[in-house]
Amino acid sequence: MKFRLFTPGPTPIPPEVVAAMSRPIIHHRQQEFKEIFRRVSENLKYVFQTQQDVLTLTSSGTGAMEAAVSNLLSAGDSALYVNAGRFGERWGKILERFGITAIEVKNEWGKTLHPEQIEGQLIRNPHAKAIFLTHSETSTGTAIDLKRIAQTIRHHSDALVVVDGISSVGALELRMDEWGLDCVLTGSQKGLMLPPGLSFIALSDRSWEAAGKSHLPKFYFDLEKARKDLASGQTPWTPAISLVLGLDVALEMVKREGIENAWARHARLAAALRKGCEAVGFGVFSEYPSNSVTALRMPGGVDAEEFRKVLRTNYGIIIAGGQDFLKGKIVRVAHLGYFDELDIVTVVDAMGKALRECERTGGLSN
Amino acid sequence: MKFRLFTPGPTPIPPEVVAAMSRPIIHHRQQEFKEIFRRVSENLKYVFQTQQDVLTLTSSGTGAMEAAVSNLLSAGDSALYVNAGRFGERWGKILERFGITAIEVKNEWGKTLHPEQIEGQLIRNPHAKAIFLTHSETSTGTAIDLKRIAQTIRHHSDALVVVDGISSVGALELRMDEWGLDCVLTGSQKGLMLPPGLSFIALSDRSWEAAGKSHLPKFYFDLEKARKDLASGQTPWTPAISLVLGLDVALEMVKREGIENAWARHARLAAALRKGCEAVGFGVFSEYPSNSVTALRMPGGVDAEEFRKVLRTNYGIIIAGGQDFLKGKIVRVAHLGYFDELDIVTVVDAMGKALRECERTGGLSN
Repeated sequence: MKFRLFTPGPTPIPPEVVAAMSRPIIHHRQQEFKEIFRRVSENLKYVFQTQQDVLTLTSSGTGAMEAAVSNLLSAGDSALYVNAGRFGERWGKILERFGITAIEVKNEWGKTLHPEQIEGQLIRNPHAKAIFLTHSETSTGTAIDLKRIAQTIRHHSDALVVVDGISSVGALELRMDEWGLDCVLTGSQKGLMLPPGLSFIALSDRSWEAAGKSHLPKFYFDLEKARKDLASGQTPWTPAISLVLGLDVALEMVKREGIENAWARHARLAAALRKGCEAVGFGVFSEYPSNSVTALRMPGGVDAEEFRKVLRTNYGIIIAGGQDFLKGKIVRVAHLGYFDELDIVTVVDAMGKALRECERTGGLSN
Repeated sequence: MKFRLFTPGPTPIPPEVVAAMSRPIIHHRQQEFKEIFRRVSENLKYVFQTQQDVLTLTSSGTGAMEAAVSNLLSAGDSALYVNAGRFGERWGKILERFGITAIEVKNEWGKTLHPEQIEGQLIRNPHAKAIFLTHSETSTGTAIDLKRIAQTIRHHSDALVVVDGISSVGALELRMDEWGLDCVLTGSQKGLMLPPGLSFIALSDRSWEAAGKSHLPKFYFDLEKARKDLASGQTPWTPAISLVLGLDVALEMVKREGIENAWARHARLAAALRKGCEAVGFGVFSEYPSNSVTALRMPGGVDAEEFRKVLRTNYGIIIAGGQDFLKGKIVRVAHLGYFDELDIVTVVDAMGKALRECERTGGLSN
């Protein structure tokens, strides 16, 4: 059976990226690697819409989240974080591990953050050093209006605006410099069309200043060292070389399409998927759906996990389920990275058919 | 020109491993991945010669070194480390970053550690919680008699024996359980024949007990969480999936050869390379040469960096140079991982020819 992956990371890898990763390995202290690494670092600036250095780490996106905390803050600092799903919650866990007083702004799963929800907290916590946000909450398929939220924060506070852009960078409009974002990070296996194993992070001038004062212990994720080494086309530690070779090709593809066009394509595909899935019987779960991953409520009586089994077994299509209390209640379909219109036709058609089968039979096991 | 890589990481990737990494990406929460991950974790035990869990991290080997420090120790602890090269020195830097009182046992570059060099330090520092060793110091091509050193430590002290096995695991004899090693770690791009991007670490019962008491901040490298998730075939964070697919094939190759046979092959190739290189004019740099990488002194008058240029430009062979004060004085040739007898014939022949050219012309630039 032909398998098709519609999960929010890993996402499909373009064949030309696979080919680049399959060439004989090169040494990371060679001139050839330095040239490639300088080029990808320049192209990452375009993707992040920033003039700042974008640093490449060999880790999952969670490693870059830890790097944001351990490089910008010091033990005893306080910080705000918005928790409206699994990944917002992760900010809180990392902050607590590093001895930061973590003030939670809790939001219902599937709801977006409204500026007035943070205004009070910002005013009540004038000493908060940073506020940790999730641009696209992968666990609920919900985005935030990042531009407006960042404006609100800058209006009320000097807190650094730190953005988990793991399932947004390359897919949702995001302009780091123009929107005044102080730290943006992402992973390789999302909008950048690579396997997992690399993460990327950029800091504003205000963040670099904070990094200079931070005294949390860090070594592997020392961003000042990474920035220093980038100036000579290098990384502090041996990078995931084959992924960097693939990244070079993936970023050329993004440039060729144009980042605005990529954002527009994601918006178009997401809208088409929502309409199509509603037409065959699903409900959109989120108040403010992300353009990279769509969370869908199951029609009455059909278990989401049973549905996923039918879709995989009979149609070869892999989508994600719900997490925590949403398990069995929602499914999540990604259209993040290497996707086009016909992929949406494919997944909607199969989902409609699989749903009818579930309604008829109660799933595979019946 | 046909390029051939003889560097101590990255090392050449077998074509069947490349093919495995090139298959369409699979999702890390799928049953198929769990089965693969369980199998590679079992096979890693064989490579480490341990009954303990071997944990897979998405990072370079340096990440696993940090994990050893941050999981086994607490701020204010003291620990010994042996510094006889760039990588021994790195232990000291990590320990200091994490607020550990780091007691250095310094050795000249190229010299091996003799048990009597640490006996005194172990007796003078009875409260040292751990001693950090480098089995094969990549920067000098020098190994230590790890079995005997570990015996000496256990005889005098309760300190945990922590081993950087980055350029040794899979290549040099290493028996974690039998030799009483408390922590062993390595990277993917060395004896395991993969691109860089994964690291591996195993802890003894005594180390897991220490990990339970450690209160250094850690999140991404939290080994207790990694162990808990491994029990269900999972990793805490998205792993470098394509590298894990390659690892599965690479470990099958190691099993097919047999780990003792792999150790013997590395010993045989290293001995052949040393003899061959001495015959054409080089001198072996190390007192106790590693079987994974050989450091060679240049014959009088020939600059090592000029020689490397000639070897690369005229013969397509990439080797490493010296680091720090050894730059220009030594070259380092790896025979680590996917190498056989004919590779040694190739590199020795080309090195001899390139050396004659350098002696005749003074290098490319003359």
